[in-house]
Amino acid sequence: MANVGVILSGCGVYDGSEIHEAVITLLALDRAGAEVICMAPDMEQGVVNHLTGEPVEGAVRNVLEESARIARGKISDIANIQAADIDALVLPGGFGAAKNLCDFAFKGTDCEVHPQVARLVREIVAAKKPLAAICIAPVLVAKVLGNDKLAHQLTIGSDEGTAQALTAMGSEHINCPADEFIIDQENKIISSPAYMLAGSISEAAEGIEKTIKALLEMI
Amino acid sequence: MANVGVILSGCGVYDGSEIHEAVITLLALDRAGAEVICMAPDMEQGVVNHLTGEPVEGAVRNVLEESARIARGKISDIANIQAADIDALVLPGGFGAAKNLCDFAFKGTDCEVHPQVARLVREIVAAKKPLAAICIAPVLVAKVLGNDKLAHQLTIGSDEGTAQALTAMGSEHINCPADEFIIDQENKIISSPAYMLAGSISEAAEGIEKTIKALLEMI
Repeated sequence: MANVGVILSGCGVYDGSEIHEAVITLLALDRAGAEVICMAPDMEQGVVNHLTGEPVEGAVRNVLEESARIARGKISDIANIQAADIDALVLPGGFGAAKNLCDFAFKGTDCEVHPQVARLVREIVAAKKPLAAICIAPVLVAKVLGNDKLAHQLTIGSDEGTAQALTAMGSEHINCPADEFIIDQENKIISSPAYMLAGSISEAAEGIEKTIKALLEMI
Repeated sequence: MANVGVILSGCGVYDGSEIHEAVITLLALDRAGAEVICMAPDMEQGVVNHLTGEPVEGAVRNVLEESARIARGKISDIANIQAADIDALVLPGGFGAAKNLCDFAFKGTDCEVHPQVARLVREIVAAKKPLAAICIAPVLVAKVLGNDKLAHQLTIGSDEGTAQALTAMGSEHINCPADEFIIDQENKIISSPAYMLAGSISEAAEGIEKTIKALLEMI
């Protein structure tokens, strides 16, 4: 049975993990017989009121505690997970991937990636274990691998500004529709746009289910 | 295209909607071509730290705002939804159904149901429109219909204490495994245990997917 790590980034599309993407990922992994190891960084995050879309001034939550909502309490601090513990790694999207796992949402291509997230992504790619990055999560993969001068391919769908940012950080960006994925065979990196493009939960699910199937086949 | 209401109760198994159950419900409805209308009561809720399982003393969140995380912001105050607006109604589970939509988790069979939730459940059943209650959500349906002296059948799986409470509130309880559902044909009420019994997200999904299929066939 494959052990697959899933990095969560909070709980809610505007300040954490995109909940649909995360749950569809967990369901696809479980249905394929994989053992899932959820993890998140133990750090503070800002809060967005998801009813209004507005930031809640002064409010602070903890990324690991909020991610535990999606994981039903079964989650580890990412600092305690090594590449040796898992056979593959998945990063669902949501603004948490661009606000908490890295600060791309605030600093663009000058972003920094959370050191534990950067460490694990680097370890997994170096170990030639497959990695899937969904929705906006490819931005942090681009930053880590770009810093390491490792040539690689990713997609965030077809948003021009974000695609240009990926290119600036060192990726080759490939356009991709919501219900598909792209594979960087050399580095065993899979990416799929999900809600970067999807107009419905079904459309996001189609791309994510294909992504997880391809990920497990690469183990 | 069917319009199906989904009553959410927060965001997280211990103080809100069970996230997997809610997302699997939304996905099954969307895949079947239904239009989903998410709703929740505009009210305060207590907070449980999902990493430790412990209540957070003094912390308060808003059920409608937290539910909006699962609905990606597309959600209505339940006070604004009438039975005439929808063709069917689904109540996913999670402790929010027993702490926010009613107070069964605190008061057992003496619980009260949130007035807007009780109103809509009563309207839907009176209109002979189908209703699905998942996981622990049947307790509030039992309370509403039991108060109205309406004979009906429900399942919460096989937990003896909860089954006895349903019976005491006026239901006929029927044992049911996690991957199945039961139908009260007379009242068009479907129920499925999901995480009351499920040992995995796949098992919960199997019962919920069957439940949604049966619900849509009854419209």
